[in-house]
This record gives sequence, structure tokens and C-alpha cells, in this order.
Amino acid sequence: MAEKRRVAILGSTGSVGTQTIDLIAREPETYQVVALTAHRNVQRLAEQAYALRPELVVIADESQYGEMKEAVAGLKVEVAAGAAAVVEAAQRESDWVMAAIVGAAGLPSTIAAAKRGAKLAFANKETLVCAGPLMMDLVVKHNCTLLPVDSEHNAIYQVFDEKHREGISHLIITASGGPFRTLTREQMAVVTPEQAGKHPVWNMGAKISIDSASLMNKALEVIEAAFLFQMPSEKIEVLMHPQSVIHSMVAYKDGSTLAQLGTPDMRIPIGYCLAWPERMETPAAKLDLAKIGSLTFEAPDPVKFPTLRLGREAMAMGGTAPAVLNAANEVAVQAFLDGHIGFLDIAAIIEETLAHVGAAALTDLDVLAQADEAARRFAGERVDGRR
Amino acid sequence: MAEKRRVAILGSTGSVGTQTIDLIAREPETYQVVALTAHRNVQRLAEQAYALRPELVVIADESQYGEMKEAVAGLKVEVAAGAAAVVEAAQRESDWVMAAIVGAAGLPSTIAAAKRGAKLAFANKETLVCAGPLMMDLVVKHNCTLLPVDSEHNAIYQVFDEKHREGISHLIITASGGPFRTLTREQMAVVTPEQAGKHPVWNMGAKISIDSASLMNKALEVIEAAFLFQMPSEKIEVLMHPQSVIHSMVAYKDGSTLAQLGTPDMRIPIGYCLAWPERMETPAAKLDLAKIGSLTFEAPDPVKFPTLRLGREAMAMGGTAPAVLNAANEVAVQAFLDGHIGFLDIAAIIEETLAHVGAAALTDLDVLAQADEAARRFAGERVDGRR
Repeated sequence: MAEKRRVAILGSTGSVGTQTIDLIAREPETYQVVALTAHRNVQRLAEQAYALRPELVVIADESQYGEMKEAVAGLKVEVAAGAAAVVEAAQRESDWVMAAIVGAAGLPSTIAAAKRGAKLAFANKETLVCAGPLMMDLVVKHNCTLLPVDSEHNAIYQVFDEKHREGISHLIITASGGPFRTLTREQMAVVTPEQAGKHPVWNMGAKISIDSASLMNKALEVIEAAFLFQMPSEKIEVLMHPQSVIHSMVAYKDGSTLAQLGTPDMRIPIGYCLAWPERMETPAAKLDLAKIGSLTFEAPDPVKFPTLRLGREAMAMGGTAPAVLNAANEVAVQAFLDGHIGFLDIAAIIEETLAHVGAAALTDLDVLAQADEAARRFAGERVDGRR
Repeated sequence: MAEKRRVAILGSTGSVGTQTIDLIAREPETYQVVALTAHRNVQRLAEQAYALRPELVVIADESQYGEMKEAVAGLKVEVAAGAAAVVEAAQRESDWVMAAIVGAAGLPSTIAAAKRGAKLAFANKETLVCAGPLMMDLVVKHNCTLLPVDSEHNAIYQVFDEKHREGISHLIITASGGPFRTLTREQMAVVTPEQAGKHPVWNMGAKISIDSASLMNKALEVIEAAFLFQMPSEKIEVLMHPQSVIHSMVAYKDGSTLAQLGTPDMRIPIGYCLAWPERMETPAAKLDLAKIGSLTFEAPDPVKFPTLRLGREAMAMGGTAPAVLNAANEVAVQAFLDGHIGFLDIAAIIEETLAHVGAAALTDLDVLAQADEAARRFAGERVDGRR
């Protein structure tokens, strides 16, 4: 790269954001940070601003504007606050955008970046699960390069021959299987939130742990992959692979299966997106298969893990159904974490919500918000009915 | 492909040749066979000619010319015989050539195909092991597309990003490890030819079995890969992987390792080469990792398998040294099969031959032939000294 790549990082103080910055800081000759946004971590955002000298910093929580302004008083940098300013950060001229804001809050800025045809790395699940058709229309229309950060989709992206896509047979998403892989359905019925994750300390980590235990994370990844790679969900398999060394695969019709492998370090997919289409050095440990010794695989049990079927049903329903699935899951998982329902109730509530709320045509973000709300309300009622 | 791909198959009656034809016969709308050559299997070559209607058939063994002529008397086809005619078949206008002639006999026709800048699939080991620098010069000069059929090199080719090759860290060639993988060096000293292969019935199969048992096949593959991918041999690792599902890998500097996996069916790499850069359906069984269950890996033992070191030493010596290594190995393996030397003597004789014959600058095929002859003579003497 002759000229510096100008980058914007939306959600710079979160896990993906800080790892992105860790990599950028190693190659100051290659990258120039244009804009940083954070939710409300003023102190870390200010530290990042001092280190990287962006043109713009945005704090999403407007109540923190004064504090933010003060924290970077020593710098020549624009300071803004609020949700609209986050979108403006995405709209600002840059070569590359990292969309790493968690949850539905990340949607408007991700869409704004897509609309200007940026190279867009995204770690925001809702972008495709909930708004897949809308997002992909924008991606095509504005010639946006969508680079997936999620390790499974990043793996597929690395071995997906877009130019000869008619040669692709199917995709294989690998799953660690989570903590309940070896339990029976009877044992699953009585698990506690504590068993579902090693560190169910704070809510976000707990949510991911439960999604991993129920395989809902894979159901959502199948949906994401279907939109991102424009493949029918029937052609996206899930394969249990407890070591999580093979991050996912693409099977071609000649019998070749191409895979991306690596140590479990998010700096690998983030670095891939950052340097794309070139490659950068990352501090990730080198993969040592001789040391690992053995990789194992098994088919997921459809009875123990009904979430995989529910994900496919939501895709078949189309429109807002995947957003309904996602919202119902969030409500049910929270209820499980709060001790109000059992583990197996999660899938049951999702299924009931999908059946009751159904699917509407996904015409715009308002329709999406309505479906999300309806799903949360109904799922909440189903939780109350079980308490 | 709008127009039919015009193909020539050099060595059409051998294992790779017949599998190539098997695939072509499945897509008569896509491929047009221009020329077929065989060593001396008149009957099979005639059958292929009747099925595929080439413009030219060549039988390399001149004494079979009359019989060949007669066997295809009912067809409108040119018939020729002799080594020069095989080269002419390679020179004839076609889009794609399969160079599947075994041994040094395949070299002139492979080179002829390279010189006219064909898309050149090659299953001929000597092309790169013995004549690597000469061949690669021609490939670059004549803008030839060299497509490797060998499953390891084909795997690497599928995941080797030539356009961004500076992003590549190293290559990993997998090895089944052969029948003696779990033996001690003491046990290896007394193995018999029968133990070295399940079917040491006919010479070619036995040779491959012994090369697999000594890991010399991997030493030669490292040399081939070094030339084909223009990578220093220090950056080409060998990894034991008894299940042979991962056929080889490319490690990138960001920590990503890309791999090609598949069932052990040569129609997969052959089909890849045939359809390149597109993909074709092949009858190869679909890879079922859940059914396979487990893939294992271990580092090769350098004491038990000195051939790996000898291969690297030959590469470091350069010039004709890899050809000397290959010739000495052929002589030593034959002596082992004939019961004249022990299994561990194979590597010892190769090492002595490399040290004695040394390396000459590889200026042309005559120099190559001289080095080959000198190596065979010296290795033969070392065999005699042990009888």
C-alpha cells in the first residue's frame, strides 16, 4: 500500500475495537485513523485519541459530551456526541470502516458506511441477521466490500471463490458445541446459568455463553452466512468441532473442501479485514497442529439442539422472521439468566414467538423495529406464563 | 465455458490419464480431445480414440505402430509413433495439456507444452524435481499456467494467493507417514520389502510404497513445491497426518492457515486442473468429517526419516543435486526391493551419492542426463559394496 489506508472505527473501546487498534498501532506507516466512536467509555476513547490522533471522536452517550470534550482538550480533534454523530463518523470520508458496535445500536452507522461504498469490516451481528436483505441491497447498489470479522464468516470469506461461485457446493460452519454438547436432553432441562458459561459474570459474556450452549449462535451464523454469501440456508451445514481450530469451510462441487484454520485469536480475522486484500503480521500464536495432536468432528444432534431448525425456519419464513428469532432469543436468554425459565424453555419460547408474531415484508428499519418490539413483547409474555 | 476446451492427454492409458478421460467423458459438451498418447497399450488407446475422436493418437513404442494403425483403422485419425511424435502431440494446438507420462520419458513433451504457453496440468514428478529451474524459466517466459495434479501440490495451489504472495508465511505438506511411522529405527533396520507396502506386486506400486515408507516422497514433494511455488525449502514444512484428509496447507503471516481437504480420490485434483479456474462435478465421494471423526497430526522424526534432511540438502546444493537425489533413490529402492540392501541403507546410499556426485549447474537436459547417469552408477556401486 503506497498511501496510508484511512480508517474509521465505530465502537473503538469494545473488544473488537481495541483489538483493531492494537493491530493498527503496530503499523503506523500503513494506517491513518480518521474517526473513533465509543458508547460511553470516555477515558479509553481519550487514550485512543491521544495515541492515534484521529480527526473526529464521537461519544454516543450525549450526557458524556462535556467530559469527553475535556478529556481531549489537549488535542486538535473534533468532538461530537449522540447517535446521529456516530452515523456521521461512518459517513466521513475514509477507505475502511470497522463496524464493531454491539447490538441494534450499530445498525444505522453500519448502513451509513455501506451507503458510501466503503470497505466495511463488520462485527455487528444484527447487520445481517435482522437487516440482511436491506443491507445486501445496499452493498450491491453502492459496490461496498463487506468483510466479515466473525471468525466463522471470515474463514468462509477467505476460501470462498466469489468469481466462480457456481462451483461451490455448500458451506460448513463449525461449532465448538458449547458446554452442554455431551449432556442428554434430560440433563439439559435442569442446567443452571452458572453451568452454561465459565464466566457468566457480566451480561454480555453470559449471553454469548448461553447462545453457544444452545447452538443459537450457530443458527444466527447460518442466517448471516446465507445473506452474506447469498447461499440458500439448506446449503449451509453446521458441524461440531470442539477444538475450534478449523473456523469454517467451503465445499466445492469437484470434491475439494477449503478451510481456514488458526489459533482462537480474534486478531487473525480482524487483521485479515484490516489488510485485505493483502496480509499483515499479527501477534497471534502460530498454529501448531502437531502440538494440538487431534481435531474431532461430529454431527449436531437435532433433538438436543432445536435452535438450528428454528434458524432455518426463520430463513424460510423470510422478511422480519430472523429479527423475531433474534429478539425472542434475547428475551428468553435473559429470563434463563435471571432464573425465571429452564434452559430448554429458551428454544420453546423462540418457537412460540416465531409462530405467533410471524414474518412481515422487510421494507425498512421501522418495520424491523416493530417486529423486534412485537417479538420481545410476546416472548416476555411466554416467560411470564412460565414463572 | 462457451467454447469447448481443447485438450491433449500425454500418457492417456496410465492411472492419471484414464481418470482424466473418465472426467472428460462426463462432460462431452465442455471438452474436445485433440491428441492422446500412450506408451504401448494399443488396445486401450484405440478404445479411447473410438470414444473421444481425437485428431491424433501417438504410440510411443515405435514397434507398435502397425498394430496401432490397424486398431484405429475405422476412424478418421492421424496415427504416429515414437518419442518425437509424443513431443509433437504436446506441441499441437490445444488449450490444455495433461502431462501424465511417468518418469524421465515425460520430460521432453512436458517442456514442449510449456514452451507454447499451454495450460499445463502435470502429474510428472521429474518435471520439477529434476528440471525445476529449467522448467520454471520456460513457464515464466512463455506465460504457461502450470497446474499441479499431485494431491499435495494441488491442495497448496488451491489456497495459494499468488497475487499477494508476500503475505504467505510458509507451506505445510502433509504426509500419511507410511507403514513404518510407528516403528523405531532399530525395527526399521530389519523390515522386508513385503512389509513396506500392502501390494508390492508390481514395480511401480512397490517404488511408491517404499518412498512413502522412507518419506522420500515428501522430500521430493518439498523440492517440487519449492520450484512450483518459488518458495525457499526452509519455508516448506512436512507434517504427519495419517488420515490424509487435509492434503496440504498454506500459512499466512496474519495467522490464517488455509487448507484443502477431500476424500483420497485423484479425480478431485484432476478435475480441479481440468476445469480450472472453474469447477466441475466429479464422482468423488463427498467428504464427511463427522463420519471420519478425528484427524491427527504429529511432527516427523528427523532421526527416523533422514530423507527429509537429504531433500533439503539437495535443494541447498542446487543445480543437478535434486536429480542426483532422485536417481540415487531409484537405484537404492530397487536394490532394497531386490533384497540386496536393508531399508536404512536407502537413505545412507542417497547421502553418499549426493556427497560424491555433487551438483553441476543445470544448463540443459544433457547436463541433467549426465548427472542422472553418474548418480545411478555411483549408487549402484554403493549397493554392490553392501551385497
